[in-house]
Amino acid sequence: MQIGMVGAGRMGANLARRLSRAGHECVVYDRDADAVARLESEGVIGAVSLEDLIKKLETPRAVWVMVPAARTDEVIDALGAMMDADDVIVDGGNSYYRDDVRRAATLAARGIHYVDVGTSGGVHGLERGYCLMIGGEPVAVQRLDPIFRALAPGVEAAPRTPGRAGEASTAEHGYLHCGPAGAGHFVKMVHNGIEYGQMAALAEGLAILRKANAGAIARDSDAETAPLVDAEFYRYDIDVAEVAEVWRRGSVISSWLLDLTAGMLRDDPELSGFSGHVADSGEGRWTVQAAVDEGVPAYVLTAALYERFSSRREGDYADKVLSAMRKAFGGHQEKLT
Amino acid sequence: MQIGMVGAGRMGANLARRLSRAGHECVVYDRDADAVARLESEGVIGAVSLEDLIKKLETPRAVWVMVPAARTDEVIDALGAMMDADDVIVDGGNSYYRDDVRRAATLAARGIHYVDVGTSGGVHGLERGYCLMIGGEPVAVQRLDPIFRALAPGVEAAPRTPGRAGEASTAEHGYLHCGPAGAGHFVKMVHNGIEYGQMAALAEGLAILRKANAGAIARDSDAETAPLVDAEFYRYDIDVAEVAEVWRRGSVISSWLLDLTAGMLRDDPELSGFSGHVADSGEGRWTVQAAVDEGVPAYVLTAALYERFSSRREGDYADKVLSAMRKAFGGHQEKLT
Amino acid sequence: MQIGMVGAGRMGANLARRLSRAGHECVVYDRDADAVARLESEGVIGAVSLEDLIKKLETPRAVWVMVPAARTDEVIDALGAMMDADDVIVDGGNSYYRDDVRRAATLAARGIHYVDVGTSGGVHGLERGYCLMIGGEPVAVQRLDPIFRALAPGVEAAPRTPGRAGEASTAEHGYLHCGPAGAGHFVKMVHNGIEYGQMAALAEGLAILRKANAGAIARDSDAETAPLVDAEFYRYDIDVAEVAEVWRRGSVISSWLLDLTAGMLRDDPELSGFSGHVADSGEGRWTVQAAVDEGVPAYVLTAALYERFSSRREGDYADKVLSAMRKAFGGHQEKLT
Amino acid sequence: MQIGMVGAGRMGANLARRLSRAGHECVVYDRDADAVARLESEGVIGAVSLEDLIKKLETPRAVWVMVPAARTDEVIDALGAMMDADDVIVDGGNSYYRDDVRRAATLAARGIHYVDVGTSGGVHGLERGYCLMIGGEPVAVQRLDPIFRALAPGVEAAPRTPGRAGEASTAEHGYLHCGPAGAGHFVKMVHNGIEYGQMAALAEGLAILRKANAGAIARDSDAETAPLVDAEFYRYDIDVAEVAEVWRRGSVISSWLLDLTAGMLRDDPELSGFSGHVADSGEGRWTVQAAVDEGVPAYVLTAALYERFSSRREGDYADKVLSAMRKAFGGHQEKLT
Repeated sequence: MQIGMVGAGRMGANLARRLSRAGHECVVYDRDADAVARLESEGVIGAVSLEDLIKKLETPRAVWVMVPAARTDEVIDALGAMMDADDVIVDGGNSYYRDDVRRAATLAARGIHYVDVGTSGGVHGLERGYCLMIGGEPVAVQRLDPIFRALAPGVEAAPRTPGRAGEASTAEHGYLHCGPAGAGHFVKMVHNGIEYGQMAALAEGLAILRKANAGAIARDSDAETAPLVDAEFYRYDIDVAEVAEVWRRGSVISSWLLDLTAGMLRDDPELSGFSGHVADSGEGRWTVQAAVDEGVPAYVLTAALYERFSSRREGDYADKVLSAMRKAFGGHQEKLT
Repeated sequence: MQIGMVGAGRMGANLARRLSRAGHECVVYDRDADAVARLESEGVIGAVSLEDLIKKLETPRAVWVMVPAARTDEVIDALGAMMDADDVIVDGGNSYYRDDVRRAATLAARGIHYVDVGTSGGVHGLERGYCLMIGGEPVAVQRLDPIFRALAPGVEAAPRTPGRAGEASTAEHGYLHCGPAGAGHFVKMVHNGIEYGQMAALAEGLAILRKANAGAIARDSDAETAPLVDAEFYRYDIDVAEVAEVWRRGSVISSWLLDLTAGMLRDDPELSGFSGHVADSGEGRWTVQAAVDEGVPAYVLTAALYERFSSRREGDYADKVLSAMRKAFGGHQEKLT
Repeated sequence: MQIGMVGAGRMGANLARRLSRAGHECVVYDRDADAVARLESEGVIGAVSLEDLIKKLETPRAVWVMVPAARTDEVIDALGAMMDADDVIVDGGNSYYRDDVRRAATLAARGIHYVDVGTSGGVHGLERGYCLMIGGEPVAVQRLDPIFRALAPGVEAAPRTPGRAGEASTAEHGYLHCGPAGAGHFVKMVHNGIEYGQMAALAEGLAILRKANAGAIARDSDAETAPLVDAEFYRYDIDVAEVAEVWRRGSVISSWLLDLTAGMLRDDPELSGFSGHVADSGEGRWTVQAAVDEGVPAYVLTAALYERFSSRREGDYADKVLSAMRKAFGGHQEKLT
Repeated sequence: MQIGMVGAGRMGANLARRLSRAGHECVVYDRDADAVARLESEGVIGAVSLEDLIKKLETPRAVWVMVPAARTDEVIDALGAMMDADDVIVDGGNSYYRDDVRRAATLAARGIHYVDVGTSGGVHGLERGYCLMIGGEPVAVQRLDPIFRALAPGVEAAPRTPGRAGEASTAEHGYLHCGPAGAGHFVKMVHNGIEYGQMAALAEGLAILRKANAGAIARDSDAETAPLVDAEFYRYDIDVAEVAEVWRRGSVISSWLLDLTAGMLRDDPELSGFSGHVADSGEGRWTVQAAVDEGVPAYVLTAALYERFSSRREGDYADKVLSAMRKAFGGHQEKLT
């Protein structure tokens, strides 16, 4: 089928490519004309403006928006003003699900359908396919089924879950209609929350392995340094890159994140190319907020988020308060190690 | 090659089967004669006592001990008394790595080698193979290489990590010599710590999804109940079993634990067959202790462990203290929901 | 000066009493006529309706609203409709600070001032005085200074902070103008977040002391129970009530919460009168949300909140997911202790 | 009565002074002769060596050891060799309680009593008195009662707990015999664990207040920066020093740590004199280990400990792993802010 794509950055370009390769007609617009030109050479139809994009699509139209979160509202507003009743706007970016609820209501007043799609897969999605979590009215989601199917990894991407029988569900293809407007981004939000937790679990574990030789290293012995009890039990020089590799086969923690980590550690076991300032991009925060609102104790997901804050030294003032208190009650001077 | 196996429970029996199928000669002893008899019908040689097992092995012998942690020392002591210099004792159970250090030193005095093997794979290991993390002297570990190779999943169990070239390392086969005595169980310990974290991340996320309809449920409005802000944003009925399924393909969090979870949720989305009392079996605790000793902030792994304590209501007294305080300063009566 | 009070529950009644005892003229209205009648016998002027209350006050009026959070908006709306430009409405309840911002803007359109007051002190405030955290326009806050001063504990409630000199600031009296509308409840919100943390720290510590005899208690030894390493070091029978008492004098952790805890433990060291279901009433949640929005890692305050969720078994589904996973990969059956 | 003191550092010197002022005869030894000389001018008897100290004491002797944890064993061994049956050695430092158990057994073989005393009070103890948590045999603890009473703050240091009647217990004086050898340091260990938690709760809360103006500060809007939702609600400039002051009177969180914090913030609200590297000196770690061993979920106390590790950048490797993963799956480049 035919679909418009607004945004030809890292994600949008690959979505267009994957759709085009699957035989769908993809019309693409991006402010960066070069990005569009590159795609045209790969069988995609270019557009020079939003108006042009709209003109090149047959009704009822479907336009997939894939722009940075900060620009999504502006693009959707512009599209909404140009499009007609029964057209569909898809937001495939990392929107906050509450914005979906608002947008869907606004567009519904004009008869335009709004579909939110949480998209996981990163830079590997072009080859592996994308995992799609979808929210919106059934009629619109249904209409886009060929698009979703082409983007998703397909059933063969994983062995069938024991107990499942008959025709594969869409989830088994790698896409799922999760509920009304916002449901797709809600599920994607929690997905990213879990991702933060999985990443942190692995990172902490590797850090513990890496310091398994702490007992072999000289250590100050003064009142400001906790003694290492049982230093003789921390004398291992663990090759963390090989450990990550061995865990990939047969272990309970084998996972795609582990596969990627094994690759990074093989290239640079010291990870000397990184400073350790870890960004967070919204979903982790919203997941914590949902946990708090719902009253679900999410210790792990929250700690994983906070570790990213800590990595950027956002906790510095609190640390200074602690140092100040220690000086006040115990006369402790800070020790700079 | 030939190897003795002490313990024919869930794990030991499957190890013996996998070794036997690979063409190794496996002599098995267990206090439970029926367990041994069952294995004899599958091509394994049975022994009626530890003495008998030792007698049936040619020197230098290798005996793999696979008994519950509480019985391991007793079995190793008995074996140590019967075995000869240059023999090898392997502990494949869930020992604390510090016990390995002690045992290796004791046995070394008699010239017996001690090898500790952390074994991951659970009930699926027979078919999938086991991930093996190994500690001990190179000479002994080297000698057992055919055994480890037969138990491990093999290179084909995962796509090769990009950047790796040449002959596959043992880690790529699924087994790794991690260092001297205790190193195997140290790495296995951290592996399980990570496992706790991965599990908790997934469990918390699914719990948040499951309560995504909290806003649609009537709620008390009294001074003892926090109001649900923005109830209109919590009106989704998410099918968590289908969500777990869709995440298996293409998503960043795809993993073996997710595969298993998708299976459990397909069978019983409410998980009504479980009470939620979650055991912990040592490695999670030791991982936290290592983190504390090394000074590595392991917020996530520790929270994952504590959630298991909480699940068993180990925090009850602390909760009562909180209720008592609230009554003391605010006159709050407990509300039993 | 003269002030109206809407709400004669636990908090409102005591505020009225304390103001009245300080010589202020207090006109009180509550839907519960009996509550008003009781106060009339203590020198307070009763009102039979909001209209009556308004009528009994001279302009420019000041009315303090002290009703459950769920009813605050309704009362303020009603008052707003009856009151005149330059009058002041005070919200002394546990409002979300964002509601203050909204209310202040609405009332400002009619020329009415809005002042938000976070009030700490609980059931002891009548005698000890209340700690007041205040937000609003300077002109209105200034006008109410005599009221705040009468409610606050006064400088003598604590020894002067070393380094402070000259006339005591209002903070040293126990009340503080923190900023524009919402600032009072923002500071109160964080205050309660800290309160949660302090309470949890004490509760956890006491729970650890109480189980200091864990090594003297028989314990299962099976694969589903983690062994207690070093049981010989957990053989203390600690009298937690006496410990709470001894910490009250000279220790770094002496605090009012500890004083109250010592009292509760003296009465009932087992705390058998409590079930351990701990309510949370909003501020703790909002504090976490603020931390997340600001990017401040608040591990402790958040864990303290989540422990309350856990105490009410809100984490049950996550626990069941963990049990299901353990069964799936390891064949572990739940053990019910 | 007469007592020997080994160690005239910050803590030891003040203990000697307080004992001397109370009329006890105090014989002091320290490797630093100047430190001893300073005390001699204040009525304390100096000793030039351990032998000299022992000689100057009448039997049965009592010697209080107050040296850095790393030197305690050496001093106690030396004393043990010189002292006689029925003498008492007191360890008042920050020993690990398990070391007490060992030392008590060793000394008991020679008939010498060992008493462990956890001492809280810091640099203010000389004037305020010390909170003493005591472990050891009743006969030895009993004999030292006059010493403990002189060091403790005394009943008047806090208002009597409601419900307590009759003669004040020793806990009400500020010292408590908690149980056999190690019990004193066990209780002190948990005390410090709680102290970490209380400190962290306050520090986190103040950090949240300090960033309450986050919405007024310009912020990047790119894919690597989470947007600040509702920036208009973070526009407060909170005077944290005044807030700390106002909380000292009437609030639920008033405490001695808050008093000290108010003082530090008054002097330097930005805490610019501190770098935020926070030391930890053993007890916090041991508290976590006890929680883990006992199976008590201590989320808050543990997070407080880990925040200290984070403050010293001990989590850096884990952070780098996270950055590496983000690059691997999403092509994210680190953003250095």
